[in-house]
Amino acid sequence: MAEPLFVIPLWADLVAVGLGGVQGALFASGFTGQRRLDLLGVTIIGTVVGMGGGLIRDLLLNTTLTTLQSNWYLLTAVMAALVGMLLAGLFQRLNRLIVGLDALVIGLFGAFGTSKALALGLPLVPAVFVGVCSAVGGGILRDVIMGLPVAIMHVGSLYAVAAAAGSLVLAVAHAFGVPLLAAAIAGVTVTTVIRLLAVIFDISLPEQRRLYRRKVAVETSAIPIVTGTE
Amino acid sequence: MAEPLFVIPLWADLVAVGLGGVQGALFASGFTGQRRLDLLGVTIIGTVVGMGGGLIRDLLLNTTLTTLQSNWYLLTAVMAALVGMLLAGLFQRLNRLIVGLDALVIGLFGAFGTSKALALGLPLVPAVFVGVCSAVGGGILRDVIMGLPVAIMHVGSLYAVAAAAGSLVLAVAHAFGVPLLAAAIAGVTVTTVIRLLAVIFDISLPEQRRLYRRKVAVETSAIPIVTGTE
Amino acid sequence: MAEPLFVIPLWADLVAVGLGGVQGALFASGFTGQRRLDLLGVTIIGTVVGMGGGLIRDLLLNTTLTTLQSNWYLLTAVMAALVGMLLAGLFQRLNRLIVGLDALVIGLFGAFGTSKALALGLPLVPAVFVGVCSAVGGGILRDVIMGLPVAIMHVGSLYAVAAAAGSLVLAVAHAFGVPLLAAAIAGVTVTTVIRLLAVIFDISLPEQRRLYRRKVAVETSAIPIVTGTE
Repeated sequence: MAEPLFVIPLWADLVAVGLGGVQGALFASGFTGQRRLDLLGVTIIGTVVGMGGGLIRDLLLNTTLTTLQSNWYLLTAVMAALVGMLLAGLFQRLNRLIVGLDALVIGLFGAFGTSKALALGLPLVPAVFVGVCSAVGGGILRDVIMGLPVAIMHVGSLYAVAAAAGSLVLAVAHAFGVPLLAAAIAGVTVTTVIRLLAVIFDISLPEQRRLYRRKVAVETSAIPIVTGTE
Repeated sequence: MAEPLFVIPLWADLVAVGLGGVQGALFASGFTGQRRLDLLGVTIIGTVVGMGGGLIRDLLLNTTLTTLQSNWYLLTAVMAALVGMLLAGLFQRLNRLIVGLDALVIGLFGAFGTSKALALGLPLVPAVFVGVCSAVGGGILRDVIMGLPVAIMHVGSLYAVAAAAGSLVLAVAHAFGVPLLAAAIAGVTVTTVIRLLAVIFDISLPEQRRLYRRKVAVETSAIPIVTGTE
Repeated sequence: MAEPLFVIPLWADLVAVGLGGVQGALFASGFTGQRRLDLLGVTIIGTVVGMGGGLIRDLLLNTTLTTLQSNWYLLTAVMAALVGMLLAGLFQRLNRLIVGLDALVIGLFGAFGTSKALALGLPLVPAVFVGVCSAVGGGILRDVIMGLPVAIMHVGSLYAVAAAAGSLVLAVAHAFGVPLLAAAIAGVTVTTVIRLLAVIFDISLPEQRRLYRRKVAVETSAIPIVTGTE
């Protein structure tokens, strides 16, 4: 590779994994009733969210799975999940924190996925695709394992749009010769901001959304009303 | 490889991806009520159906994912999904067209999967397995992401049988020295015809099927109490 | 590799695949009512459980999928599934046999996954992770395809704990220079015993468990009526 900057530094990767682990555990802790998870279940979900994006990225790129080449990824994900679980009571009311974390995690995973794909020589469109899959893959795995409707399909389409926009900005900027670090920062920013704006926007039409949600909730009878994250 | 014919021509691959995208979008457009998908959701499902077979095939073969090596695959899948969505109103009553497309897509993906597996040196049985997974994988992903019962398990067993029969014909013919192109055409034909016959057969007992379906819906009610294993 | 013992002998691998196939088919045969599966469905589930662990292991390790390199794996899985199905009536009351088989299968897949990961140079923590994923992966695929709540999250957390404990024992013993065969036997034993103890323990609180299950069943009540296409 002519461009060694494409190598994601370990600390940055671990930050994304850790934030994902915290966010996943906070999400999983939010369920009550029949879907309530025990400590181990919450830890598993936190780990899945923290590790999922990187695993899916490397499977799609058919490369060695980076997240399994060092003890640190799993240790970070599990410890982050435990922290998220312990602090869940405290964070519960800090809904904004969860949403903010979530937006940042999507942005980071999207940027890492797109960068690595470009570094491996993928064309622009599939590179963006890999970025989007990295960004939303952890959440899809989480929903499938928890037996929830896949958020991205039902309420969270903007997830995918936010991830795609950021990944596209990164890939296009890179194609025009912008240094990768700058392109990546731009990509993360675009994804995070779009995602946050989407949430803030939604706040202006909460009734419709809530009604929709409640309807789903009532008729799927009790997939619990997630007040949390997405 | 002594037999360069094993290389699937790009245009043929794109035809399969495109037909899959149209078919997936038509399927996803058909839902109303709580499961109604927005434009983006329909596009995602179309893309998943169009791309899924090839991705699963290459993951199982542990080779570079062909569908991510060129911009055309994703562009074709997305454009096909948009076309499918736009024409959904028109096609809605052309149920036969959807069924026919579906049968053809299964046949194509099954043949491509089996051919590629044989070309990479897999024995006959796993080559057929890869063909079946390529053929039905997109549909399984679609159902899991949409939160539907996986069609292949409940109403669509014949899906798997049709795909397996076509893949087997291809693999056996190839083992007997039939040129691959001829073997592939035979395989696609067998799968498509079996699938169409299965549907036509079903038409003679629509009531039972419909009853069955409704019952499933009502009584899936009870995720049964597993007295069994775990 | 200095340690050729890391190569899992074909017969041992096939024993694990076969036991998984029998166990999966017994599980799938146990459903009545709307979730009742036909012969083909039971065979598919048996095959998925028998093959799933090995497939997931090799995907995570980014190596050639061993289970697709010989006809024997699939033939064994399918034949085992058929045997399991035919004997289901006989075994139905031998609940202990199913549970025992299940515990043994988890132990074997966990040990094979961890061993192979160590042999490929993965550090201890991810090697244990690969072992756990091999052990529980077949069951997760089974539940997702059958549309059941993923057992590992709801009633079967101890699945993961048992698999992790056995994999950890194997990996630590290996790190301390214990020959792999001995380490693997220790690992399989630990997993199997923990799993069996967990089941025996559960027997002392069956009411709560049953109540819990029934509640889930009642309230997931209505997966809405799909009138649509497929």
